[in-house]
Amino acid sequence: MKMIIAIVQNQDQRVLVETLMENEFHVTKLATTGGFLKVGNTTLLIGVEEERVERVIEIIREVCEPREQIIPNTTNTTLGTEALYSTYPIKVTVGGATIFVVDVERFEKI
Amino acid sequence: MKMIIAIVQNQDQRVLVETLMENEFHVTKLATTGGFLKVGNTTLLIGVEEERVERVIEIIREVCEPREQIIPNTTNTTLGTEALYSTYPIKVTVGGATIFVVDVERFEKI
Amino acid sequence: MKMIIAIVQNQDQRVLVETLMENEFHVTKLATTGGFLKVGNTTLLIGVEEERVERVIEIIREVCEPREQIIPNTTNTTLGTEALYSTYPIKVTVGGATIFVVDVERFEKI
Ligand code: NI
Ligand code: NI
Ligand code: NI
Repeated sequence: MKMIIAIVQNQDQRVLVETLMENEFHVTKLATTGGFLKVGNTTLLIGVEEERVERVIEIIREVCEPREQIIPNTTNTTLGTEALYSTYPIKVTVGGATIFVVDVERFEKI
Repeated sequence: MKMIIAIVQNQDQRVLVETLMENEFHVTKLATTGGFLKVGNTTLLIGVEEERVERVIEIIREVCEPREQIIPNTTNTTLGTEALYSTYPIKVTVGGATIFVVDVERFEKI
Repeated sequence: MKMIIAIVQNQDQRVLVETLMENEFHVTKLATTGGFLKVGNTTLLIGVEEERVERVIEIIREVCEPREQIIPNTTNTTLGTEALYSTYPIKVTVGGATIFVVDVERFEKI
């Protein structure tokens, strides 16, 4: 038995958890704070038989593949007593994942 | 030193944490989301000497033993323009736990 | 690769995470509940190369060193129909950390 600890972006976690569950993996979601560009992270705990580790990593790779995304960004400038807001698109890379595989010495399901 | 990662139902966690603490185990509660039938799960981290692993598992087994419970369930039916609500009891299995034991290579208490 | 799981006091976590990041360690913050004297704990996950484990533990030791702190404490006494509040300083030990180092069999960055 192995335990996979996967840290993924919040925006990817729903599709990832659903895909893992459709493939009959058991997933526990740990709440995670922090992240960059206000994009938080989610940490998932996946207990899995050794021979299925590769499949989990494949699924994470497909769902969380880093990709570019255009998001609106807002700046404000003060001109005399007036605040001017302007919105312009910026390109950010979203997705990505950090995966740790740890050995489980004993596993019990009660 | 071993680390026990136990995923239990929220409704069992208080009694479990108290019982573990009375037995002088150190427990860290990680917030967990999700679960089924709106019953969320809690993930506990328990650092423990190898010879006391069995005792922790025994305690979890006693507190989190799966058992049947009768809970009220509500359905609503629409009849013409009226919504009819009916409540009836359903039997659900509560409790249960998933336990992983992982080896700790180094342990420091500062 | 090793995974360091560090449980520290909430009041120390900000400086600790900043110091670890300045030293180019990757830190994931897991939300943690509980604690004593209403001081909650934070659990950090730090993935690190074996040769840098010692450095992480050194940093935690420096930032989370247990130290005495004077905090105001309030008691209330009932005298007839009146409640009397008094505030007096008490000395508490803050800081401290619990550190587990676990082997990582496989590490993937996607
Ligand atoms: Ni195994
Ligand atoms: Ni040991
Ligand atoms: Ni390694």
